[in-house]
Amino acid sequence: MKDLTRDDLTAVIQPRPQESHKGTFGRAVLVGGNATYGGAIIMSTEAAVRTGTGLVSVITAKHNHSALHARLPEAMVLDWTLTRAVSELLGTATVLLIGPGLGLDSHSQQLLQLVLQQQTSTQWLVIDGSAISLFAQSDSHLNYPEHIVFTPHQMEWQRLSGLKLTHQTIDNNQAAQKKLGATIVLKSHRTEIYTTNEQYRNPLGTPAMATGGMGDTLAGMITGFLAQFPDKEAAICAAVYLHSQIGEELGKKRYVVLPTEISQQIPRFMKLAENINKKTKGK
Amino acid sequence: MKDLTRDDLTAVIQPRPQESHKGTFGRAVLVGGNATYGGAIIMSTEAAVRTGTGLVSVITAKHNHSALHARLPEAMVLDWTLTRAVSELLGTATVLLIGPGLGLDSHSQQLLQLVLQQQTSTQWLVIDGSAISLFAQSDSHLNYPEHIVFTPHQMEWQRLSGLKLTHQTIDNNQAAQKKLGATIVLKSHRTEIYTTNEQYRNPLGTPAMATGGMGDTLAGMITGFLAQFPDKEAAICAAVYLHSQIGEELGKKRYVVLPTEISQQIPRFMKLAENINKKTKGK
Amino acid sequence: MKDLTRDDLTAVIQPRPQESHKGTFGRAVLVGGNATYGGAIIMSTEAAVRTGTGLVSVITAKHNHSALHARLPEAMVLDWTLTRAVSELLGTATVLLIGPGLGLDSHSQQLLQLVLQQQTSTQWLVIDGSAISLFAQSDSHLNYPEHIVFTPHQMEWQRLSGLKLTHQTIDNNQAAQKKLGATIVLKSHRTEIYTTNEQYRNPLGTPAMATGGMGDTLAGMITGFLAQFPDKEAAICAAVYLHSQIGEELGKKRYVVLPTEISQQIPRFMKLAENINKKTKGK
Amino acid sequence: MKDLTRDDLTAVIQPRPQESHKGTFGRAVLVGGNATYGGAIIMSTEAAVRTGTGLVSVITAKHNHSALHARLPEAMVLDWTLTRAVSELLGTATVLLIGPGLGLDSHSQQLLQLVLQQQTSTQWLVIDGSAISLFAQSDSHLNYPEHIVFTPHQMEWQRLSGLKLTHQTIDNNQAAQKKLGATIVLKSHRTEIYTTNEQYRNPLGTPAMATGGMGDTLAGMITGFLAQFPDKEAAICAAVYLHSQIGEELGKKRYVVLPTEISQQIPRFMKLAENINKKTKGK
Repeated sequence: MKDLTRDDLTAVIQPRPQESHKGTFGRAVLVGGNATYGGAIIMSTEAAVRTGTGLVSVITAKHNHSALHARLPEAMVLDWTLTRAVSELLGTATVLLIGPGLGLDSHSQQLLQLVLQQQTSTQWLVIDGSAISLFAQSDSHLNYPEHIVFTPHQMEWQRLSGLKLTHQTIDNNQAAQKKLGATIVLKSHRTEIYTTNEQYRNPLGTPAMATGGMGDTLAGMITGFLAQFPDKEAAICAAVYLHSQIGEELGKKRYVVLPTEISQQIPRFMKLAENINKKTKGK
Repeated sequence: MKDLTRDDLTAVIQPRPQESHKGTFGRAVLVGGNATYGGAIIMSTEAAVRTGTGLVSVITAKHNHSALHARLPEAMVLDWTLTRAVSELLGTATVLLIGPGLGLDSHSQQLLQLVLQQQTSTQWLVIDGSAISLFAQSDSHLNYPEHIVFTPHQMEWQRLSGLKLTHQTIDNNQAAQKKLGATIVLKSHRTEIYTTNEQYRNPLGTPAMATGGMGDTLAGMITGFLAQFPDKEAAICAAVYLHSQIGEELGKKRYVVLPTEISQQIPRFMKLAENINKKTKGK
Repeated sequence: MKDLTRDDLTAVIQPRPQESHKGTFGRAVLVGGNATYGGAIIMSTEAAVRTGTGLVSVITAKHNHSALHARLPEAMVLDWTLTRAVSELLGTATVLLIGPGLGLDSHSQQLLQLVLQQQTSTQWLVIDGSAISLFAQSDSHLNYPEHIVFTPHQMEWQRLSGLKLTHQTIDNNQAAQKKLGATIVLKSHRTEIYTTNEQYRNPLGTPAMATGGMGDTLAGMITGFLAQFPDKEAAICAAVYLHSQIGEELGKKRYVVLPTEISQQIPRFMKLAENINKKTKGK
Repeated sequence: MKDLTRDDLTAVIQPRPQESHKGTFGRAVLVGGNATYGGAIIMSTEAAVRTGTGLVSVITAKHNHSALHARLPEAMVLDWTLTRAVSELLGTATVLLIGPGLGLDSHSQQLLQLVLQQQTSTQWLVIDGSAISLFAQSDSHLNYPEHIVFTPHQMEWQRLSGLKLTHQTIDNNQAAQKKLGATIVLKSHRTEIYTTNEQYRNPLGTPAMATGGMGDTLAGMITGFLAQFPDKEAAICAAVYLHSQIGEELGKKRYVVLPTEISQQIPRFMKLAENINKKTKGK
């Protein structure tokens, strides 16, 4: 198991090509946010937008549209009951995220199944939060597991892998990952990442980040990094590292760090990483 | 009657355990906010979230959901007419707050009765604002008065205790507290706290804080402190002190201090208190 | 005609009494904001809250409640179609403001008539924006003109006084004021104030403030000053001066100053004025 | 083709006349924002307000009103299904903008046709986003092409001009402009402006600006500049330059710059330009 370092972040944050446009940086489509958990998808969206995703669209309960636009007019919204339009929009994505605030009812399950069925061979898909539980209780099939990232916390990982908390050892986790074929971002106070070929541990993080919505923000950051950066495994690792790096930095002055405060700092911390990236190359 | 001091705050604000997650810091469920007083429950929610409560859910009129999410996606919301879901959500709480902007109609009374009946022996319950008046005019019974905090201003205390303003002396207040069995946070320009064993006076506070919503913010802070810190009496005192400490500090540069401005400063002031806590222990 | 000076501001901004509560600083009820002009009443509300009014309630189209709470949970809201509740709420006010974004239809006229009829001998009433035009085209009677402030711009003053723009000389304006009996705040790039006994001119102001909503903000500030300060004529003059003082100061760094930016600075500038007030008294 | 320089900006940003009021700085009416793309018209509105337009009204889906007011009470809103009121409001404008988030359905087309038919000889009209595509697929006629600005990106320009991306050379673009008779702001990483008499290239811009909504913000800035400044060709050039100037400056500290962050800086950067304008004249 490799510990992530600052280099894992800075190697990913390349200077953007001069001749580029928003299409160069991907189109993310996020699915989640029911009547009760609308805040979750809003937090994911803020993270995805502020990482620099070219275009971000959000498929969510109509109820959440106004709050989302009040915070962030940069994102587009679609009422998640409009099945045909939902289906069309999914097709335009380069990266999909489903789960934050999605809920556990039958409509949520239908949306998950739609996403799983429609995923194309070029699309990456992040499965987070209640979508992990929904997946675990369904007998769904992953069409492109090698393009899928699960971001469970330990209880969700138990549902997904069948491993009780006390059995979630590195070896057992890796074996479960092998069966699924997808990348696993196992969130805890020291997050671990399991891919087919490698294991990573995030050495950063602070208990000031132990507050609701932190995972939604991380899911949005991973989505945004997958949208822009070519090396997907490296992008996932970099997003995980950056999330905690910002949290630690903010935590020096705050007893608790809010997820939306993390998001606001993303562009600044990515710039710092880019500057190091440039210097390293200059050598 | 003991005057609260900075030590009463710093003793409470322990460094968070490294191996923790949002569940470590409690789950608060807040009930309030009708069509007219929705701002009150929003202000309580901001305070509860920013003190570092692990998870915060808000049971409020649907009308208020969008504004709450626009300000604070970190909180979850539930339409307060969905009785069954309300009842289930109450059961998940470690701390309950009822009252800010609750109103005085029959639905408000029903919600209060539901909360009083459902309170379990491990849950703390803060009763604020119109819920105090509703309680006073009902013949309700407190199941676990030793886990209940009332936060009346002087008129509400009159309704609750039967003591007219001119009779609200320390001795009379203490006698009324004994009858109720609950902790009383009696708000005024020098707030007093009555518990079964002790009396405290808050020496801080500034007339710059004399503006609508200040009490809603305080109620949210007490809720958040009860959610996280093990010594409940000390937690209540610390929240009262911190609220005024921030108000005084902001009041040095402002003729009036808004309740939401207090909330924004909570994480920073808690960090300062934690730093003193660490130093003191280091000695 | 007297030019307003800094002393006219600082003499009004007394230190607040230590033993005070929100009731000490008045209760303002604001009426306005239809489906199109909701922003106007929001801007007035922000100004009234930030001047330090004890309690602020807003009677407005339901459509505007969510946006208002999203910006400012400190204010209470009431759907302006609920006639009985509206009537009751008006009765609780120490100061009333009607007009910002009120519109010109029959419902707006009914609200104005309700306010005019219900005004009590102790309530101050500010009549702004479309309420001035509505008043001019009605044959309404002012019950307590000595407690009324009109805040017209020059076109509205023409409607109210019958004076064409070219005839709006000091003498003609004063004669029109005498007939009305109310205080007139005649807004222009150098605002003039006409009371029964005196005339004032505001020497401050910058074209950076020439943007929609500036008058709504001023109306809210006058309302907030009337709510708190005992000398009403002085309070009106002070609010007018402060509005432009903040605008000029912000205008040094901005080509245009938004009304909501003025409001955000009110508490800070009032504190500066209070500090001068204290020093002056100390001599 | 002339490269734009800082002088093209500072020459336009004149000090405002002392004796002015909001009417002096124009009235902009913006049309756009359907249920999915409401954020686009919100971003245009923020840009138009912050450039200093005297009055800004927004004709948009009712769905978007609350979010718009939550962010920016300075703008007025009108439900775009109220055809008669829409038609009246269009008549009051000095500048019109149609397109951001307008969508492509029949109602969007009707609104575009209404705007094209109602444009008067004194009104300027900016046609952006989906309105360009709608125009291209209709057989509409431009009544006052000399008062029209199209702001296409390269794909929209293909639809409008019939020129495929590889054929979009300066000469071909100029020939297409001649046929249309309108000013063309052809957006790319180096935006070009084609008028009847001149061609300009914007040398500024950064890939940090390659994110959704940047064009909506630019359209709002052009609209605001047309509303206030007498030399319209110069105003368009200045708005294009300023947009990128702010983006470059913010991009020094951020890996990605959000459109709404650009808008927030407009008043400050316009002030800097005005200061240079004054100094230049002082010589």
